[in-house]
Amino acid sequence: MAKGASLSGFPEWLPSQRVVEQTMIDTLRHVFELNGFIGIETRAVEPGSSLLKKGETSKEIYLLSRLQEVGHEDGKPVEDRLGLHFDLTVPLSRYVVEHSGQLTFPFKRWQIQKVWRGERPQDGRFREFVQADIDVIGNGELPDHYEVELPLVMLSALEALRPYGCPKATVHANNRKLSEGFYRGLGLSDIEGVLREIDKLDKIGAEEVGKLLVSECGASQAQASACLELAELTATDGAGLRQGFRDLCEAHGIEVGGQAYELAQEGLETLAMIVDEAARIRPGAVVADLKIARGLDYYTGSVYETFLDGAETLGSICSGGRYDNLASQGSRTYPGVGLSIGLSRLLSYMLGRVGAHASRVSPAAVLVAVWNEAGRTASNHVADLLRQRGIAADVAPSAAKIGKQIKYADHLGIPYVWFPAQEGDAAGHDEVKNIETGDQEAADAVSWLPDTLIAQQGVEF
Amino acid sequence: MAKGASLSGFPEWLPSQRVVEQTMIDTLRHVFELNGFIGIETRAVEPGSSLLKKGETSKEIYLLSRLQEVGHEDGKPVEDRLGLHFDLTVPLSRYVVEHSGQLTFPFKRWQIQKVWRGERPQDGRFREFVQADIDVIGNGELPDHYEVELPLVMLSALEALRPYGCPKATVHANNRKLSEGFYRGLGLSDIEGVLREIDKLDKIGAEEVGKLLVSECGASQAQASACLELAELTATDGAGLRQGFRDLCEAHGIEVGGQAYELAQEGLETLAMIVDEAARIRPGAVVADLKIARGLDYYTGSVYETFLDGAETLGSICSGGRYDNLASQGSRTYPGVGLSIGLSRLLSYMLGRVGAHASRVSPAAVLVAVWNEAGRTASNHVADLLRQRGIAADVAPSAAKIGKQIKYADHLGIPYVWFPAQEGDAAGHDEVKNIETGDQEAADAVSWLPDTLIAQQGVEF
Repeated sequence: MAKGASLSGFPEWLPSQRVVEQTMIDTLRHVFELNGFIGIETRAVEPGSSLLKKGETSKEIYLLSRLQEVGHEDGKPVEDRLGLHFDLTVPLSRYVVEHSGQLTFPFKRWQIQKVWRGERPQDGRFREFVQADIDVIGNGELPDHYEVELPLVMLSALEALRPYGCPKATVHANNRKLSEGFYRGLGLSDIEGVLREIDKLDKIGAEEVGKLLVSECGASQAQASACLELAELTATDGAGLRQGFRDLCEAHGIEVGGQAYELAQEGLETLAMIVDEAARIRPGAVVADLKIARGLDYYTGSVYETFLDGAETLGSICSGGRYDNLASQGSRTYPGVGLSIGLSRLLSYMLGRVGAHASRVSPAAVLVAVWNEAGRTASNHVADLLRQRGIAADVAPSAAKIGKQIKYADHLGIPYVWFPAQEGDAAGHDEVKNIETGDQEAADAVSWLPDTLIAQQGVEF
Repeated sequence: MAKGASLSGFPEWLPSQRVVEQTMIDTLRHVFELNGFIGIETRAVEPGSSLLKKGETSKEIYLLSRLQEVGHEDGKPVEDRLGLHFDLTVPLSRYVVEHSGQLTFPFKRWQIQKVWRGERPQDGRFREFVQADIDVIGNGELPDHYEVELPLVMLSALEALRPYGCPKATVHANNRKLSEGFYRGLGLSDIEGVLREIDKLDKIGAEEVGKLLVSECGASQAQASACLELAELTATDGAGLRQGFRDLCEAHGIEVGGQAYELAQEGLETLAMIVDEAARIRPGAVVADLKIARGLDYYTGSVYETFLDGAETLGSICSGGRYDNLASQGSRTYPGVGLSIGLSRLLSYMLGRVGAHASRVSPAAVLVAVWNEAGRTASNHVADLLRQRGIAADVAPSAAKIGKQIKYADHLGIPYVWFPAQEGDAAGHDEVKNIETGDQEAADAVSWLPDTLIAQQGVEF
């Protein structure tokens, strides 16, 4: 959690921390655009009716009232009020339907924005945070090759964060059809319920989940055991996945060729394709992991979670899946697949555990000193000459003693202090000092260049 | 207003429009950082008590309720509820006080974020919009050279938008002390009231304002005339400004050397310094214009508005001023000066009147064709080789007829279509086609370069 977050759940970063966040956002955007994703932003608010439609987080939304309406709020149904969006997928679905005539499909978009969840303050969870999403939305249909391409783009994006201290990421994939087919094959019918309990495995363990499957989902002991065994199945290639699944079906008497089996088979083949194709491009980075369930109820096929090496307790930092029924207009549907990085949580980890920080607080590479207030115009002129060549420059706030001006640069991490030639000194010339090494040399603002290693503000850890 | 803004006042942009907004944001940020401003973001919400403290917009805030609280909202005083920020200055003041121990002063920061105002829907005004702000905050004191430097940085920033169609900008400056001293010298006491009426000059004209000064602020006809004459005074240099002001004081019998006169004189000298210093660096870009009043009540010295050539009806697109009393902690005050670009309004003008648009919808420079689904892996490989060299690339969504794949590229504005060598064609090689010129040439994904003029997505008008 942010130091000094004076409102619980609303993180706010110090300048050095914000540089890390901004660098992460810039890096993700760069990778998304390299892959042909189109950037959009949606408004922060949606009608209550659209926020309440889908997903278990719908209970945690913030509703808005205009100050003038305060005291008259109760009469208005929640569906007719405005609320802050709690993710970027529901707004995307609405955007796509609304602008379908002006978009080219499949529509590949990236979106990095804040979202809000009205969590109870004592939960210690973020109530305002940034998500970084990519999705592909089809018009009527969507080829399944996107179900492997999207996690691979996210892996490239996370890989691009490694120079800033982000650990190696692995995507764990599953498929809802596979799970549902298996559960139905066992004779279970409360599929949502089983998925909800399986989703708790990492938190409460297999024994507790087994009990809940019996008490909440009407499973027998044998059915509960089978569900838990399925959840234990992992594979790094399609052949291993198929073999493991076949063994489980045999062990639990699931009829080959039945309707439930066919559904499972459909999911199995998509998942096998994903791990095999991903292994060709980024070996080991995508694994089939059949305990992945995802709480949100709008996923209909592939589901993904992403874990960082050595940061398993952080949970999934990038999740998503395929949703075939989130957006529709009349008989037309817009199936989609997407993943979302929980950027604020990842940032919080990188600031706290990894120790990521700005190489310097100020973007300026140079602080131009001021000998006296009458000479400020000359100092401003030097700074402008540097800026015209792309060198970020600041000017000392006051004509204080030079030691104090150097201290100001030092506090901000500005590596160079520039001394303009003093007026009346005919033979004088400008000089520039590297305040870390102490080296000082004659310099001309129209040609001098900073050391390329310290010219730009960056992120270290 | 955005096409297809389905919620009045909440603009939402199509992909091509969003490219213009994103380019404007990137450009402003670049100029702000070149000038040594530090980027921060503040949370979107503030306690009602802090939102209600200052400024006339305080009546237009959005308050939040958690869904679970709906129906129990009335019991809670507005001051204890959370609301969305309506500008970036009030949050900055709070941030600076909260983190004062961890910041270096003077603290120069840029901030580009959405803000919200709970306007009545029928007003046709934005209720959600982006502001781009720079401010400098001092600890206890703040040198007045920042009062000329900040408008100059904003002028550089707006100048950097001209390649995207933004007209030439002129900053109109005034000083609250000058106005207040003059009004008090005339014998008026309701200074806030007079400023509020003078602020309406552009909207309702001098005659109506004159009547309001009499009816609302207790001015005599002569006092009202004097206020209107002051508002007519403009100057492009300090000498002209001083002369004009001296003439007005004489004409209206304001006692030289009196307390009110001294206050006016203090403001006059700051304003004269601003126009003279600005003229040295950017002649004609900053003018003294004594009708500038600014509605918000937290300004205590310089005030600024910015107008675009040929777009005077748009009103001020970048406003601000000096505020000495917005932030304080015990006896410690944090005086500041800053300006804020109404980015959404400016964008709306550039999209509508100037016709700014993306050079293409997709960031991709190349679409790699797919001969058949079995060959998708090969096409993905070509795209990856291009991306590794920084060339944004997309892959055709399906192995449709080549004509259809080219059409997909064309819809997205992607300039090149890449044809991988077909499998089994031993002598074969990749080819790339510029779909605008029709030129097609042999190409290798590890060395080919796009025409530099069309390699990057840009903004045209």
